[in-house]
Amino acid sequence: VLTQIVDLVRRDDANSRPQLEALTGLGRAVVNERLADGIELGVLEELEAMPTTGQRGRPSRTVRFRSDAGVVLSACLGAVSLHAAVSDLAGNPLGRAFRRINVADGPRPVLGSVQTLFRRLLARVDGDTAVWGIAIGVPGPVEFRTGRVVAPPIMPGWDGYDVRDHFYRRFGAPVWVDNEVNLMALGEWHRGEPREGRDLLYVKVSTGIGSGLVTGGQLHRGDSGAAGDIGHVRVTADRRVHCRCGKTGCLEAVAGGWALQQRLEAVAADGTSSALAKRLASHGHLEAEDIGLAVAEGDAVARSAVVHSARVTGQAIAGVVNFANPGTLVLGGGAIRHGPLFFEEFRKSVLEGAIELAARNLTIRQASLDFNEGTIGGSILAAENLLRPQALRLWLADGNPRVVAEQLQGAA
Amino acid sequence: VLTQIVDLVRRDDANSRPQLEALTGLGRAVVNERLADGIELGVLEELEAMPTTGQRGRPSRTVRFRSDAGVVLSACLGAVSLHAAVSDLAGNPLGRAFRRINVADGPRPVLGSVQTLFRRLLARVDGDTAVWGIAIGVPGPVEFRTGRVVAPPIMPGWDGYDVRDHFYRRFGAPVWVDNEVNLMALGEWHRGEPREGRDLLYVKVSTGIGSGLVTGGQLHRGDSGAAGDIGHVRVTADRRVHCRCGKTGCLEAVAGGWALQQRLEAVAADGTSSALAKRLASHGHLEAEDIGLAVAEGDAVARSAVVHSARVTGQAIAGVVNFANPGTLVLGGGAIRHGPLFFEEFRKSVLEGAIELAARNLTIRQASLDFNEGTIGGSILAAENLLRPQALRLWLADGNPRVVAEQLQGAA
Repeated sequence: VLTQIVDLVRRDDANSRPQLEALTGLGRAVVNERLADGIELGVLEELEAMPTTGQRGRPSRTVRFRSDAGVVLSACLGAVSLHAAVSDLAGNPLGRAFRRINVADGPRPVLGSVQTLFRRLLARVDGDTAVWGIAIGVPGPVEFRTGRVVAPPIMPGWDGYDVRDHFYRRFGAPVWVDNEVNLMALGEWHRGEPREGRDLLYVKVSTGIGSGLVTGGQLHRGDSGAAGDIGHVRVTADRRVHCRCGKTGCLEAVAGGWALQQRLEAVAADGTSSALAKRLASHGHLEAEDIGLAVAEGDAVARSAVVHSARVTGQAIAGVVNFANPGTLVLGGGAIRHGPLFFEEFRKSVLEGAIELAARNLTIRQASLDFNEGTIGGSILAAENLLRPQALRLWLADGNPRVVAEQLQGAA
Repeated sequence: VLTQIVDLVRRDDANSRPQLEALTGLGRAVVNERLADGIELGVLEELEAMPTTGQRGRPSRTVRFRSDAGVVLSACLGAVSLHAAVSDLAGNPLGRAFRRINVADGPRPVLGSVQTLFRRLLARVDGDTAVWGIAIGVPGPVEFRTGRVVAPPIMPGWDGYDVRDHFYRRFGAPVWVDNEVNLMALGEWHRGEPREGRDLLYVKVSTGIGSGLVTGGQLHRGDSGAAGDIGHVRVTADRRVHCRCGKTGCLEAVAGGWALQQRLEAVAADGTSSALAKRLASHGHLEAEDIGLAVAEGDAVARSAVVHSARVTGQAIAGVVNFANPGTLVLGGGAIRHGPLFFEEFRKSVLEGAIELAARNLTIRQASLDFNEGTIGGSILAAENLLRPQALRLWLADGNPRVVAEQLQGAA
């Protein structure tokens, strides 16, 4: 009942005692008691409304959700990037940080960087604010239930690593660990523009290629949390195309950012493209932005490589669109730094390859949250889980994030 | 409230007035009133329990769901097959019928065959029993909301055909139209063996190739009902492989039953395989069973063609398994008539191609309902929809299937 009341207020469906009574069908005494619980917990507050001129009787009071009752921390790891944020309980960012990493360095140094950013972000917000929960996205398969990384192709040293326990030990709060693309999909579904509310497929083309499906407002995680892993579907029988996962012919080995950069660095080194050679000479390797600049300058080699990547990816995603039939398809990741060419070719290939019924009402757009969709999705994931009935009961019974984590997630 | 009571009784969670009061939290008067509604509607009945020796006081009464209050009709169309059934409101078949058809003959003759089978099935059950609802599965994309077929690759003459209206006009009952593989997936999820209750991906390999995903007990239909359409994903860049959909290189053009039969009929005609030549001579074409028998006899050409089909299909499904991460994968359709070879090769290819987290707890099995999963799934789909709150209210207000259909589906 407390949850129901918190939810109605949080979603702005009710903001007064009489409204809560009407919507829940509960009596005044019960509503008052539950409101008192929510106020004690800090997630609800009651405000005296401004008296209106000529108003008679007692001033009315407004019930409000206190999104500032606590904060959540979220981090989103890519192969070479780390975004982190501190947010309120409504998922609104209060602070953000970014750092370059190499996920292949293994869990301890990489998660050490996450901790450093978390500490800095916390130092910037009010020191008294409790960390209610933490969400971590990693670029590999995650068993969501246990928070463990499982056989990740591009994360050497991480197999079986208990990311949840790592953060629980250091921050003493409940921790949710998920594939990073799932968090991005959730972020775009909740806060992306335009907001459509239809099933959303988020495709991340960066170093690797992954996807996440939000259906009916919920992430489709599948039976063991592996859902959305499309990078290692075989797109060519050519066994010379080696993927970092150990197999051959995988989508990301043909079309991912890592493959594209390898190919274009070779081309740059042998002098076929002066635009790319210039950039390779300037900092020793090529990045998505370098390729994007070469494309913008009209470099034929860069253009043709980007078009090839975009088409192969689009064809594979057409198959996923046929299977999942989303209403919205969002392209995110470093590939959008290649400039409009990649997106346009990707879009065309998806529409060419998809069947009519799946294609005709499909919105295809680029990610709209400036690479923050992962930390936004993470903060929403943590907040939603923290405000569920079971969690709210635990908060009310004790109020110590460590105890809530132990009870909620069986953390040791 | 009526629905809640019907549901509790239907699912065997409660079978007496005191249990209903306890589980719903409703007072005795309200429960009695709603029970009376359910009894008037015919879906509930109250039975005097057998008096136990030595029992004191009034004999207790049992409330029971009357699955025989009405019947539902279901039909499942393949490219060349039609299964039909009449079932009770719990989805238990009361009668079944089968006929060979050619879906390419167009909607009127094909749906005429469905009507004929429906009439025959109805003649076999009690003539007074009202048809409460109808479910039709067709081998093409369906806009579930409107019951219309949309741009079906193998159903010439069906594009835009209003299958729902066709049956509403003839039977005057609510009609649900869906892709036939969706109905099969639903049937196997509810009644297949072993029952696991986890997310289930059903893959039908027959003339064409399609799939259906049941997640959290519900069909994933996608934004426009196209979900599961995997037959037309491109698996080869070879533009000589023409698909019946008009594109080239589609999965079903390479590995579907139609492609396999075309290829083996050519081989049989040129004399490379005596086993196949014999069967081609006996009835002018090859069927799945003929290929199965040649495989069983050890015919090398038939074996290698079946292995190729199974591997290509398995590789494509590995990609779907990575994306959807089901707990159970069911292979159905004519391909299982090719004998164990197809299934074994399919199974191996799926496990080889899927990532570890998606493969390690995956159950892979053959369809277990002897080609009746489509009509079973259809009857369950219709019954579940008929017993939803909105529908029950309509039944109670009028009780005429025609009126319910008009109100529920906006049929004209």
